[in-house]
Amino acid sequence: MAGNSFGKLFKLTTFGESHGIAIGGIIDGCPAGLELDFEAIQNELNRRKPGQSEIVTQRKEPDTVEFLSGIFEGKTTGTPIGFTIHNTNQKSKDYSHIKDVYRPSHADYTYQKKYGLRDYRGGGRSSARETASRVVAGAIAKQLINSIKINAFTSSVGDIFLDKPYQELDFTKTEANTVRCPDDELANKMIDKIKEIRKQGETIGGTVTCVIQNVPIGLGEPVFDKLHAELGKAMLSINAVKGFEYGSGFCGAMMKGSEHNDLFNEDGSTKTNLSGGIQGGISNGMDIYFRVAFKPVATIIQKQDALDASGAIVEMQGKGRHDPCVVPRAVPIVEAMAALVIADYYLQNKIYQ
Amino acid sequence: MAGNSFGKLFKLTTFGESHGIAIGGIIDGCPAGLELDFEAIQNELNRRKPGQSEIVTQRKEPDTVEFLSGIFEGKTTGTPIGFTIHNTNQKSKDYSHIKDVYRPSHADYTYQKKYGLRDYRGGGRSSARETASRVVAGAIAKQLINSIKINAFTSSVGDIFLDKPYQELDFTKTEANTVRCPDDELANKMIDKIKEIRKQGETIGGTVTCVIQNVPIGLGEPVFDKLHAELGKAMLSINAVKGFEYGSGFCGAMMKGSEHNDLFNEDGSTKTNLSGGIQGGISNGMDIYFRVAFKPVATIIQKQDALDASGAIVEMQGKGRHDPCVVPRAVPIVEAMAALVIADYYLQNKIYQ
Amino acid sequence: MAGNSFGKLFKLTTFGESHGIAIGGIIDGCPAGLELDFEAIQNELNRRKPGQSEIVTQRKEPDTVEFLSGIFEGKTTGTPIGFTIHNTNQKSKDYSHIKDVYRPSHADYTYQKKYGLRDYRGGGRSSARETASRVVAGAIAKQLINSIKINAFTSSVGDIFLDKPYQELDFTKTEANTVRCPDDELANKMIDKIKEIRKQGETIGGTVTCVIQNVPIGLGEPVFDKLHAELGKAMLSINAVKGFEYGSGFCGAMMKGSEHNDLFNEDGSTKTNLSGGIQGGISNGMDIYFRVAFKPVATIIQKQDALDASGAIVEMQGKGRHDPCVVPRAVPIVEAMAALVIADYYLQNKIYQ
Amino acid sequence: MAGNSFGKLFKLTTFGESHGIAIGGIIDGCPAGLELDFEAIQNELNRRKPGQSEIVTQRKEPDTVEFLSGIFEGKTTGTPIGFTIHNTNQKSKDYSHIKDVYRPSHADYTYQKKYGLRDYRGGGRSSARETASRVVAGAIAKQLINSIKINAFTSSVGDIFLDKPYQELDFTKTEANTVRCPDDELANKMIDKIKEIRKQGETIGGTVTCVIQNVPIGLGEPVFDKLHAELGKAMLSINAVKGFEYGSGFCGAMMKGSEHNDLFNEDGSTKTNLSGGIQGGISNGMDIYFRVAFKPVATIIQKQDALDASGAIVEMQGKGRHDPCVVPRAVPIVEAMAALVIADYYLQNKIYQ
Repeated sequence: MAGNSFGKLFKLTTFGESHGIAIGGIIDGCPAGLELDFEAIQNELNRRKPGQSEIVTQRKEPDTVEFLSGIFEGKTTGTPIGFTIHNTNQKSKDYSHIKDVYRPSHADYTYQKKYGLRDYRGGGRSSARETASRVVAGAIAKQLINSIKINAFTSSVGDIFLDKPYQELDFTKTEANTVRCPDDELANKMIDKIKEIRKQGETIGGTVTCVIQNVPIGLGEPVFDKLHAELGKAMLSINAVKGFEYGSGFCGAMMKGSEHNDLFNEDGSTKTNLSGGIQGGISNGMDIYFRVAFKPVATIIQKQDALDASGAIVEMQGKGRHDPCVVPRAVPIVEAMAALVIADYYLQNKIYQ
Repeated sequence: MAGNSFGKLFKLTTFGESHGIAIGGIIDGCPAGLELDFEAIQNELNRRKPGQSEIVTQRKEPDTVEFLSGIFEGKTTGTPIGFTIHNTNQKSKDYSHIKDVYRPSHADYTYQKKYGLRDYRGGGRSSARETASRVVAGAIAKQLINSIKINAFTSSVGDIFLDKPYQELDFTKTEANTVRCPDDELANKMIDKIKEIRKQGETIGGTVTCVIQNVPIGLGEPVFDKLHAELGKAMLSINAVKGFEYGSGFCGAMMKGSEHNDLFNEDGSTKTNLSGGIQGGISNGMDIYFRVAFKPVATIIQKQDALDASGAIVEMQGKGRHDPCVVPRAVPIVEAMAALVIADYYLQNKIYQ
Repeated sequence: MAGNSFGKLFKLTTFGESHGIAIGGIIDGCPAGLELDFEAIQNELNRRKPGQSEIVTQRKEPDTVEFLSGIFEGKTTGTPIGFTIHNTNQKSKDYSHIKDVYRPSHADYTYQKKYGLRDYRGGGRSSARETASRVVAGAIAKQLINSIKINAFTSSVGDIFLDKPYQELDFTKTEANTVRCPDDELANKMIDKIKEIRKQGETIGGTVTCVIQNVPIGLGEPVFDKLHAELGKAMLSINAVKGFEYGSGFCGAMMKGSEHNDLFNEDGSTKTNLSGGIQGGISNGMDIYFRVAFKPVATIIQKQDALDASGAIVEMQGKGRHDPCVVPRAVPIVEAMAALVIADYYLQNKIYQ
Repeated sequence: MAGNSFGKLFKLTTFGESHGIAIGGIIDGCPAGLELDFEAIQNELNRRKPGQSEIVTQRKEPDTVEFLSGIFEGKTTGTPIGFTIHNTNQKSKDYSHIKDVYRPSHADYTYQKKYGLRDYRGGGRSSARETASRVVAGAIAKQLINSIKINAFTSSVGDIFLDKPYQELDFTKTEANTVRCPDDELANKMIDKIKEIRKQGETIGGTVTCVIQNVPIGLGEPVFDKLHAELGKAMLSINAVKGFEYGSGFCGAMMKGSEHNDLFNEDGSTKTNLSGGIQGGISNGMDIYFRVAFKPVATIIQKQDALDASGAIVEMQGKGRHDPCVVPRAVPIVEAMAALVIADYYLQNKIYQ
């Protein structure tokens, strides 16, 4: 049962393979009358696109989105917004060596076994290239809920951690460096780390933290579609994600009740926010914050054993153009998925008003 | 947009408040012809039910499930399975003190703000009592996919961690102690810890680890409904959960590609399993394992400030019967939710065969 | 993929077999704060229940609904409303003769083939008894949208047709006779017809017309979930329905454009209403009206050939207590389904306001 | 809550306005490994496309479909199939006169009121041009279920009815004439009628009958998603449809049980088929047949009163290129929607096997 749609009221369905003609999607449910800032949409795409800096993949794609429907005279019409991003810089020949080979810790093997065939070029559908479509939809979602602020940033690369509470950060600095860490000093360390890793033909994992501010009270739908459950699913659906925690997260599991409880102020806000802005699956008006763990990219420029279709172990070496660390480019994707979740619950909340 | 259903093909919808007449649910989509082991279902309910030991809440509920439909002569008929669990031991008077008071880190405030009114007795719908319905459905799901083995256990209480790899554990020992940790020695430490915490009028967090074995290759639906994304959502939908990680999880975010990649054996299995049995959102036939973080229960038997409906801070003290640590009773709930996810994808996988 | 749920925002899931312990359902998505008129709900059930008059089945069921959740101090809480109607007057022995026999034009054969087994007692799940749950939910939906008026009535029994335009009818007279036709004189003819049919051991078909008035402009969701498409599905999902038409319906297919077009008044209303209150799948504020065709009940009290499980043709004679004409009892069911559709779109419409 | 998706397992989402850049869609859920016959797909589009004959609109569109994803080396990959059909022959200026005018019995008024703005060019989203996307998806669905035969044909134009039972028709003759009626003689009468109607600047309604043969037993999902309920919704979602009946339909409502019941043969087939191949919402293996009523096209080339945005009645005359009778071009659309429904249930049926 295919799973290429996300959201209920602000629903995105995506299509496209890494090296096909185009990727794209349909946004169904964007309310009518929203005046779109197309430059802002393209900006978000640019943040995600490859080839921006020396610490990301050198594949060059203009990643220009073309809107085909659902917009009239600059405004959404309430009808589905179809869009495409054409693939222009495919070097499919780079991938002929994996036609009959399953790379370790890639989705080659599982796609082949599930579907019986696969578009092996550049990972096909399993490539993170698909997330460009998410970024387009997320950029529109951001505009729909523009009083709500969503800021993601790189909070760790390997063992280099940003330890400051997010309240001490200046989010306007996130875009000031190529690793997207709003602490300049730490950003430089992270960049150096990634460069070193790349030189080794290696890759490295990291985490992205996201803060959502100015959230109305009441978003989220118990008991299964809790706000954090849907945020978790959204993040876990991003390529290479291995974990999600919100508020106190895994640390909270070591705490006592008296330490963990967030006492109220008279206006309903809380003195602390270990809850992460959500109680019982419903936003309480405090900041929502969460952290997402990304594994190291599986393609390394070293010789590795792989499995071929005949069941033999063969030696292969990564080719193609890959990211040494996925985290900098993941920052806008995390924001996009967060925007999709929040926009959906924002619309859901209107039902009962 | 109400969110009381879980699953697509094996779909559970639950209803019920902690102190209402009954809780229950409907399972829609259980295939016909499954001969049910009713004792096994009741057993799962008994594992979750309150009052089983001195380290859990002393509320006594028989938690007897009554099936109303969908079963004929002991077998499922393919029609919806309706069931109820009557509430018998409500002490609603215990809760009159919170009628107009929002307890810290409970869902009282958010429910009141979202819905404009709430059944405050025992937390109403936000009570973990609702999870009994999940356990019923999960128990049936387990029987549907009975060649797949799902074993959860307590992997930490506060700062007491079970550090052994799960491969060294004997899951048959999980039920041998009241904390549900398959390592006897550590279990005793955990039990002592919980007793001490209870004496303090405190509560404590913990984690549950779950291992799913003998999983067919091919479960999971990219790109949004990846197997681990749905598992994550399922776990995050359980009361008190703050985090989810699978495979290498947050540790994976500190690793290099060469360390993290799982090299193949000739039969398609892998030598290591940092992937946690899932590649590209699709099961690869290796063990699936994940870890779930639970916060400390918010109700503590100490004086705390709370907020009343008029906007004043008032002092209150926890009453009612509560768990000092939610983790032992969460073990069967984690299994139940895992079973629901796996059963659903198991059925989904049949579509394209 | 089980299909026992109806609606998206005001969602009903039903369970239950004709001769099981209980039938019932869950309404998920009813907004909080609705003060329920329980007597009105029971009234609707009474309209549908068997044994009310000499022209319907003599099975006697109190059809008393018990609400288990989602209501607190008389008001809905926004959480799922679980309810049951216990079966009390099952005469399952009446059905032992069809255990291994498939009655003509019943669902015995298709259920057996689809599911491999079936609860044969009284038709099991395929019995129209299930519609009692729809009536409960519809009665609540009516209260939610109480400014919108939904009136169904019997518009034909066999070849006796009510030919007056609905505007000339007094809907308060619908309940004044047992056949539910608001024209007294015609009602008597219909009643006589049904009595005669019953004497013959026969059954007869008929139609129900439904008029929905005071509908806000804008309900309906192109291009697939058009208002009339969902109304059509709702009606076709009722037992024994063979056709649905709205506005000009099948007659419209014989007309010319100049005859069929509804010219506007200055206030946006139209001078005629062949459109049936819907343009492009969206309500235009005019009355919505549609007609539903019901086949004759398949159970007749005459000898008929049936098929047994071994593949032999066997003679059988209808037993059990059956309706000679389903139409009188179908009237409240049609209203209930219409209320569910309208309530859902009413809530959907709030999303974008 | 936007409604631009159809189907659950074989799911089509469409986008596009009549005079936008492109229309198109995404098919999510087509199983992998289906070798596509692209010519057959284009053929279906050609059957629907405008400008084919003198009895349909003279707008000329090549209606060439471009597939962007989901297909590799001629076979489906199990990933979403994105496709576009570019609009090339828009004469948007034809429509400037309706910018601020609502045409009678068009969706101009309801779209404007629902969304607050609209792409008025050629009816925008409400144009039947959208159905080209349905035809693409339906053509693929047909290939997926290629042992099941779906044949639609024109069964009436105005008061000219095809009275023969479908069993006496030769479906290979349907495409032999421009009106798509498999009875040559009657086809000529229909064509003459449409020519005459066109000369009058008029339009005329009609009906399409569809026969589905070689259907496996067991398709359909009670109690709400009955096979005929979903077929009905599918048909009612097509532009200009006013009614749907299957099997005995509205005639069945005039019959007695003894006349209407379909007696069994020993092999489970039935001697008659007033049921229309469906019992209890589940296919019984007999032919499924149904009839769909289309109203006359609202655009007539005569002066008519319309409403302008300021609330004044203004005289207008139809411009643009329109069909005098929608029925001939509706035939492939009815088939496409039927194919989508059957393909979906065909896949659903695999779940429980």
